[in-house]
Amino acid sequence: MREIQLQSPVSYVLRLERGEDVFETLTNFCVEKGIENAHLTAIGAVKNVKLGYYDLATKQYGSKIYEDDHEVASMTGNVALVEGKPFLHIHAVLSGVAPGSENVCVGGHVFAATVAVTLEVHMTVFNEPITRSLDDEIGLKLLDCGQE
Amino acid sequence: MREIQLQSPVSYVLRLERGEDVFETLTNFCVEKGIENAHLTAIGAVKNVKLGYYDLATKQYGSKIYEDDHEVASMTGNVALVEGKPFLHIHAVLSGVAPGSENVCVGGHVFAATVAVTLEVHMTVFNEPITRSLDDEIGLKLLDCGQE
Amino acid sequence: MREIQLQSPVSYVLRLERGEDVFETLTNFCVEKGIENAHLTAIGAVKNVKLGYYDLATKQYGSKIYEDDHEVASMTGNVALVEGKPFLHIHAVLSGVAPGSENVCVGGHVFAATVAVTLEVHMTVFNEPITRSLDDEIGLKLLDCGQE
Repeated sequence: MREIQLQSPVSYVLRLERGEDVFETLTNFCVEKGIENAHLTAIGAVKNVKLGYYDLATKQYGSKIYEDDHEVASMTGNVALVEGKPFLHIHAVLSGVAPGSENVCVGGHVFAATVAVTLEVHMTVFNEPITRSLDDEIGLKLLDCGQE
Repeated sequence: MREIQLQSPVSYVLRLERGEDVFETLTNFCVEKGIENAHLTAIGAVKNVKLGYYDLATKQYGSKIYEDDHEVASMTGNVALVEGKPFLHIHAVLSGVAPGSENVCVGGHVFAATVAVTLEVHMTVFNEPITRSLDDEIGLKLLDCGQE
Repeated sequence: MREIQLQSPVSYVLRLERGEDVFETLTNFCVEKGIENAHLTAIGAVKNVKLGYYDLATKQYGSKIYEDDHEVASMTGNVALVEGKPFLHIHAVLSGVAPGSENVCVGGHVFAATVAVTLEVHMTVFNEPITRSLDDEIGLKLLDCGQE
């Protein structure tokens, strides 16, 4: 395990509007504010979600698309720097709204999502920048947080 | 997107007791402490849960009732002011305990829940009040957090 | 409900490595740092998970084992002292990676888990120690946080 210690958090409550792209909107916000390290949770509803999972054996992501509205039952993510730019890593549990799938959950790694209704994000910003670098063995950009 | 910046968080660990109404107990706590803006997560177990989803087309919530005990696999919420009083917005993922539904998840917007066993809430309180106002187009009270 | 007020949070971003035992690694970290009260969330992927639920009627936990890789769609937990040592209480929602179970969620109380791929933990540490004590009526060690 690696660790990085943080202090002096500043927080934001963000209200994303219907139709906004979650990744574009939050990434732009981080760029504008100079945010290089943050943690976030969110509740609300999203649509046109690309939700996936990583297959370590093939070092490839798989994914499914969920076009219709889903409640964001849980959303957790972080912000780190990749090639000097804020990069969002977000996982979520979505629950169905459509008849026959009410409250049924799907979850995983969020590749893309559009706000449906509203999205209420609580973002905590930290004082220390944190970066991600490609780990060849894993095939993903892992957080650089100190030495093992 | 709209934003509000926050500082000086104070946190609480709250242990809710078996049989307590989650919304009544947490709302009363916020009133007593004068809490006007907070973020919370929780784990534990609940019963008699009314869990729902918003249909933007009809501007109406649908819901289902889950009477038997469920683990709170995830619970995320916030506190804002509606008509001057603390208002809780909570989403959750619940997992089954009863034979045949063990670990099976349902999720969504929590309308009501009673504590089963225990509920461990971590609430972070912020210095700036935040309010909700009805958005006619959406049909819901959205967070008022600055201008777009 | 019982409460304890907290201040002066210090946070850590922790990157757990593939193959690390989640409970052993995080418990050792808390021991080394003298952490007696913390809150955590995490995203990533795990395997060999023992995931369960508490049956209040029998005062016994049931559980199921999930051997193959799962995304950690949501993970929420806390640290308190039991017999003077840091004790982790963690709930999670896991989503399937294997063919046929992609994005399908299971959730509940995490008894054990091994990191698959990576696990990104955000831990907030508080200034006040918090303990757990056995509640005979419930059959579990509940958080000691002030008087009702």
